[in-house]
Amino acid sequence: MSKSHLERRIHKLRDELLDAQFDLRKSKAGGVILIVAGVPAAGRTETIRELLQWLDQKYISVRAFELPDRHERRRPPMWRYWQCLPARGRITVLFNGWYSDFFSAASAATKAHLRKRSVARIERLERMLCADHVAVVKVYLHVDSKLQRKRLKRLQADKLTRWRVTSEDRLMAKCHRAVDRAATVCMKATSHKAAPWLLVDGTTEERRVLAVGNALLNGFRRVQEQSREGETYPWPEPSPGDGAPLPSRPTRTLSDEEYEKELREQQARFALATRRSRFRKRALVLAFEGMDAAGKGGAIHRLTHALDVRQFQVIPVSAPSPEELAYPYLWRFWKHVPEHGAVTVFDRSWYGRVLVERVRAFTPEVDWRRAYAEINEFELELAEHGIIVQKFWLSVSKQEQLDRFKKRDENPLKRFKVDPEDWKNHRFYDAYQLAAREMIERTHSPHAPWVVVEADDKQYARVTVLKAVCDRIERELG
Amino acid sequence: MSKSHLERRIHKLRDELLDAQFDLRKSKAGGVILIVAGVPAAGRTETIRELLQWLDQKYISVRAFELPDRHERRRPPMWRYWQCLPARGRITVLFNGWYSDFFSAASAATKAHLRKRSVARIERLERMLCADHVAVVKVYLHVDSKLQRKRLKRLQADKLTRWRVTSEDRLMAKCHRAVDRAATVCMKATSHKAAPWLLVDGTTEERRVLAVGNALLNGFRRVQEQSREGETYPWPEPSPGDGAPLPSRPTRTLSDEEYEKELREQQARFALATRRSRFRKRALVLAFEGMDAAGKGGAIHRLTHALDVRQFQVIPVSAPSPEELAYPYLWRFWKHVPEHGAVTVFDRSWYGRVLVERVRAFTPEVDWRRAYAEINEFELELAEHGIIVQKFWLSVSKQEQLDRFKKRDENPLKRFKVDPEDWKNHRFYDAYQLAAREMIERTHSPHAPWVVVEADDKQYARVTVLKAVCDRIERELG
Repeated sequence: MSKSHLERRIHKLRDELLDAQFDLRKSKAGGVILIVAGVPAAGRTETIRELLQWLDQKYISVRAFELPDRHERRRPPMWRYWQCLPARGRITVLFNGWYSDFFSAASAATKAHLRKRSVARIERLERMLCADHVAVVKVYLHVDSKLQRKRLKRLQADKLTRWRVTSEDRLMAKCHRAVDRAATVCMKATSHKAAPWLLVDGTTEERRVLAVGNALLNGFRRVQEQSREGETYPWPEPSPGDGAPLPSRPTRTLSDEEYEKELREQQARFALATRRSRFRKRALVLAFEGMDAAGKGGAIHRLTHALDVRQFQVIPVSAPSPEELAYPYLWRFWKHVPEHGAVTVFDRSWYGRVLVERVRAFTPEVDWRRAYAEINEFELELAEHGIIVQKFWLSVSKQEQLDRFKKRDENPLKRFKVDPEDWKNHRFYDAYQLAAREMIERTHSPHAPWVVVEADDKQYARVTVLKAVCDRIERELG
Repeated sequence: MSKSHLERRIHKLRDELLDAQFDLRKSKAGGVILIVAGVPAAGRTETIRELLQWLDQKYISVRAFELPDRHERRRPPMWRYWQCLPARGRITVLFNGWYSDFFSAASAATKAHLRKRSVARIERLERMLCADHVAVVKVYLHVDSKLQRKRLKRLQADKLTRWRVTSEDRLMAKCHRAVDRAATVCMKATSHKAAPWLLVDGTTEERRVLAVGNALLNGFRRVQEQSREGETYPWPEPSPGDGAPLPSRPTRTLSDEEYEKELREQQARFALATRRSRFRKRALVLAFEGMDAAGKGGAIHRLTHALDVRQFQVIPVSAPSPEELAYPYLWRFWKHVPEHGAVTVFDRSWYGRVLVERVRAFTPEVDWRRAYAEINEFELELAEHGIIVQKFWLSVSKQEQLDRFKKRDENPLKRFKVDPEDWKNHRFYDAYQLAAREMIERTHSPHAPWVVVEADDKQYARVTVLKAVCDRIERELG
């Protein structure tokens, strides 16, 4: 390819990229993530800088991740990446992205990166992003050992660029062959249809940027096409639970006296459990689901009453805001994942997707169907980080729900709780029951179990919730 | 007051508080901050817990601040408080809030809290919040030394409450009188009409919670009244600058050759300056203002080209989103304050308030008028933390602006830049000039200077911006 031919192609690409970015910004069809990895001196920085010049950089964020700091280590490994996902219409460029562990000099030696679970975690994330209209473009820049040494020498000779050569770079250059071999294995393991790796020759600047730019352009196009055609990659249907019977407990009525006594006892138990030194390396996530007036708020109150007010957060979940809609579905829940030692209580949760959004048809079936698998993955990642996850379905009968609505309308201290929308949801009672049953079957797991609480008697329900939480924590802390 | 009389009053207060919270949530008139301070064992935790039981706790966040961690120390001291301001309709309860330094055992000894500037900083914040419809309710709970000792003993005797007594508590109990004296001085210094301190006797539980609850209720009412009547506390008019002539530089035209040479030189200078080890304890905030097509984007590109792509962020500022509108005006800019070692470039900035919002009458005069003082305070806080603040007004003539709009319409690589809104703004050219002149006069300061750049020649403007930034950084780093 002659020089002038290259230049013409670059000019054309620039034009197309700018168009594509503009279209994406207008259509807000989705976002794009560009992950740039590669060997030192292959031109990662230069390529990104060039692309920033071509595009409207106001809608691009560039992030690099080093080893997790104290703050980040107190949250699950993928947490920090969720914080920087692009909103619809935006681009995020990541140095190495979630592959930081994979492409370091250390990993080339230890092969720690090959742990099956880290590969699966990444693939899950990328498929989820893809289904949620975020294109993931992954490029790996490569140069041979000779050219790499030459470039590093030149960078070090100039005081303007010396800072760019780190000790990690020097180490990686030294074991160039091992790094190459490790990278090949990694790319093979983490290439899949939704987000394949592209190996780019970093020898000449124009060809390199042309290749990366074209990959990015494809990413833009994928997002647009997908949003038009609604095509998503096939998503695995999760198995309907482990078949074990749900731990639903028979209902009974407590006298006021029994209630007061049990409540005090369980609250003390809960307070002690969350004060144990072992809990400081764990955390607690509680999700409360149930129809309107099932008594979620009351049960949560009785729980949090036992805690240090500085230790917990109650997150009310309702219809997503426009800002939240601009991100993949689970983004707004990842934001509130507690750090070690803390408790987060969700008053309604990520299960809204397969409950209200399903029943009221706010979300297309293909999207809420894949939510089961996404949710299972989310909860697994929490559990793997030592977070104790416990979910409650507060089950209230149709008649009792109606009675409570009526009572609420009359009680001045509770009138704020009734909404016209609630009455509407009451009409969907049976559809909710069906959705709840399927939800519980598909997302009940040993590390994030559902507890179904018969909630027609409020006092009984509250004590049962507290007991279940205490049982779980005590078992987990040993 | 008899026991039953107290109970009736509490019941009435609960009812009123619930009503007030509900009204606030519906009207979204503003937010409420409740700061609870006091001596150990005066009942701070119990009071907050009681209020959480009364109110709808889904719309309340509780936060406590310990000594700033590494992450927080890399940002100005008030940064972490800005992150937890309540959105309209919400309540934030803060343990000690921004008074943590003031009410510690150490401060009672050293009187470090009395530094005039920390008092002024807090008063400014509280007045700003008040003007922005956030009521700040401050209560200090107190018990005498004898009762305090008795309560601490009781807390320590029970394994359920032992964890609550910290070494700091014991130290403060030991020097009860010194703590009292220091607190009195502090409260006097930081009581002002917008947010007075309320001293509450913590001896009996009912009276204590009644007093705090009533203060909170008043807070709710203040917000509602203020939003109805638009009454704000008088806000100091900032002096119109220091009278010094603005450092506007005469325009001239650069040949392409001169431009290339100068650009390369200045970019190298900038790259070196931001790589100096001293810069790691500083940060850089650049704000670009100017009419549409003044060349802000181009100048920013030339600047950021010299930086490590991981080191800077470009923040485009346009009309606030609904989420941003739910917070005090400067909230969305505080979010992006860089940590030490980083560079943030604002493409348009907090000056939108006194430019577009003024010219197009999007904001009432009383609000944009007080923005001058708020902005000066904001920039001062950045500067006090070692952040180098530099602001540019890119000045383009009326004719040149028109020519550029026309050219943009024709150039395929730039067509994305023209918006119908731009043509509209062009008609307001003279009003913008007037607003810009007043803005520069009122907010030019040695620690956050404006540089007016004649931008009819783009190349000249870009080089001038780079030079000014380099001059400034080099002078600051010494």
